[in-house]
Amino acid sequence: MLEVAVIGCGMTPFGEHYGKSLRNLVEDAYLSTIGSVDKGIDPKDIQAVWYGTLASSWASFPIPDFVGLSQLPVSRLENACATGSDAFRNACFSVMAGIYDVVLIIGAEKMNDEPCSSLWNYQAMENWNIGRSMPGVFALRATRHMHEFGTEREQLAMVSVKNHHNGALNPRAHFRFETTVEKALKSRMIAYPLGLLDCCPMTDGAAAAIICRADIAKKYTDAPVQVVGLGLATDTSYGTMTDEQLVGFPTTTKAAKEAFRMARLEPKDVDVVELHDCFTITELVSYEDLGFCRKGEGGKFVEEGMASLGGEIPVNPSGGLLAKGHPTGATGVAQIVEVFEQVRGQSGKRQVADAEIGLTHNLGVAPEGSVGLVTILRRGT
Amino acid sequence: MLEVAVIGCGMTPFGEHYGKSLRNLVEDAYLSTIGSVDKGIDPKDIQAVWYGTLASSWASFPIPDFVGLSQLPVSRLENACATGSDAFRNACFSVMAGIYDVVLIIGAEKMNDEPCSSLWNYQAMENWNIGRSMPGVFALRATRHMHEFGTEREQLAMVSVKNHHNGALNPRAHFRFETTVEKALKSRMIAYPLGLLDCCPMTDGAAAAIICRADIAKKYTDAPVQVVGLGLATDTSYGTMTDEQLVGFPTTTKAAKEAFRMARLEPKDVDVVELHDCFTITELVSYEDLGFCRKGEGGKFVEEGMASLGGEIPVNPSGGLLAKGHPTGATGVAQIVEVFEQVRGQSGKRQVADAEIGLTHNLGVAPEGSVGLVTILRRGT
Repeated sequence: MLEVAVIGCGMTPFGEHYGKSLRNLVEDAYLSTIGSVDKGIDPKDIQAVWYGTLASSWASFPIPDFVGLSQLPVSRLENACATGSDAFRNACFSVMAGIYDVVLIIGAEKMNDEPCSSLWNYQAMENWNIGRSMPGVFALRATRHMHEFGTEREQLAMVSVKNHHNGALNPRAHFRFETTVEKALKSRMIAYPLGLLDCCPMTDGAAAAIICRADIAKKYTDAPVQVVGLGLATDTSYGTMTDEQLVGFPTTTKAAKEAFRMARLEPKDVDVVELHDCFTITELVSYEDLGFCRKGEGGKFVEEGMASLGGEIPVNPSGGLLAKGHPTGATGVAQIVEVFEQVRGQSGKRQVADAEIGLTHNLGVAPEGSVGLVTILRRGT
Repeated sequence: MLEVAVIGCGMTPFGEHYGKSLRNLVEDAYLSTIGSVDKGIDPKDIQAVWYGTLASSWASFPIPDFVGLSQLPVSRLENACATGSDAFRNACFSVMAGIYDVVLIIGAEKMNDEPCSSLWNYQAMENWNIGRSMPGVFALRATRHMHEFGTEREQLAMVSVKNHHNGALNPRAHFRFETTVEKALKSRMIAYPLGLLDCCPMTDGAAAAIICRADIAKKYTDAPVQVVGLGLATDTSYGTMTDEQLVGFPTTTKAAKEAFRMARLEPKDVDVVELHDCFTITELVSYEDLGFCRKGEGGKFVEEGMASLGGEIPVNPSGGLLAKGHPTGATGVAQIVEVFEQVRGQSGKRQVADAEIGLTHNLGVAPEGSVGLVTILRRGT
């Protein structure tokens, strides 16, 4: 297997982009990515494109044209909320196999515009009256976690406070305000115990990355970032959820195990994490599922500041989905962007000191099951 | 790069499957694939799944569960009408990279049921009044080809006659009737010069394949089929089509060039072809674009029987999209199924004598551009 390095990353600001088309967002993410390659890159070096979008478009062959890379091969990946991460994973395989030397990954979503918005409305209409809305699906995990382990709403609120604090430091975050435990607890109830500040927003945006064979990375930058671990897992639940599925996501654990094995690393080696906090409970159980603490101790983990900037394992320095936002197809790629910058020491006020190894975790969940995807990146030598 | 072999292939009959769910179709294709592995296979050997569907479902994590392969990693690929082929291509990359040893590819589509049918209706409503229906888009190529090269409607009809002849020999084809040039010419006009018998039907179905590292293929079969070439290309046209785009699909040429280079083969080496004949004109120009004859000579090629069973390069022995049918996500995988069986001598009455090297060609076309994907398979040793 050939080794793969990330040599450039970029993204649009996340937010409501009614003033921009999907094409505009893709262009903006691409240009910032090209601009991030330290020694410059001739766009002609890019040989193929992987494109992640959950529902903003299909028949993606115009995507390379949007950014002036006409006639390049492009594949569209969709894997629920883990879409962008799986576009990155498949692109990596093509380089590891020796098929392409330099590949562009783009993730994009306009959650607030057609056709994506209809998908969510349709999903909501189909399921809302029986409580299977997205907040409802995650709320079930929260009440069960509270019942099993004594987790408190205050601890969920602490996740929100932490991520909004980080988001306020991130110029590209959708929400840039601080909040407090009190405000989070008093925010409008959505699905008990999740209030408005326990939920991520509907966000538009795009993110991109350029990867290449590790042995040619130095042509583009003296600070490449190696892709050392990739893991993907799925499960299903069809109304008969296991105890494990009620208080976490076994797909996260399985994907992490696969990624750690490939990377020959352990959870304790990780310096910085971007994980899928679509709701506060999701972040809390993911501490456990990823192996950063034991099952049931997620509440304590956030309460003790372990996941804060300056803590043992800073989680979601970007603000995460809660504050940075969650444009589904872009989310996984944006996680790569943050970790790429973190391990290169480029994260400004939210920089994690001396981060060398970073992990991204993405998750897709529906009443029928879930998909987990973990990527491990390491500062190159 | 590790070499990849196909060790099993299967599919449902293609047709209108109102009596079966998408899940049923996936199950049926999977079971026939497992059953095709000569020495048998323990389903537990399968490590990952790639799933191709254009629009029949999203959030594909339940797919492995449908076939009893719970909790396997699954990625959904979508690439317009080339969807199934790109699922196969991405799966191959993962094996070539050494990530997985044994991988399952499934392509499936219910064209006649929701949500897929709405997509086509939506596409039609948006574009119909300006003639940009699918038949309209391809009819433009036909009239231009007739104008430039003197191609005749009779020659288009001959493609239909040939493929319906082959389809009548294929128990899994949607349409199993013979037709004549006269009947094809008199069939109801859809978009001049394309009559009803120049058009493929709306078809439901699923197809699957199992690939593995070539060096372990003998564990499963003494007759593995090697994947020797893969090529993907896109282009765009945004209202300013080039001369080349008016009389063919440059993406086919480009994808074929890439696949032939990887395989170290030339068009003259190919013994059997499954190509994307969504309309008769598409097959005719694809003879040219794939390099089996010169540009403009496609009409003569079919007229002289070169593409017939028993001809120089038999094309679409399965009946092609015109007779076998075109369930978008399944089509590319079904092409692999046919070539797999052909080079193993398992095609019964439609067997191409001593076929050793087979090519599949898939195409996605919209007014905005096209995507071409070529795969070359070779009888293993």
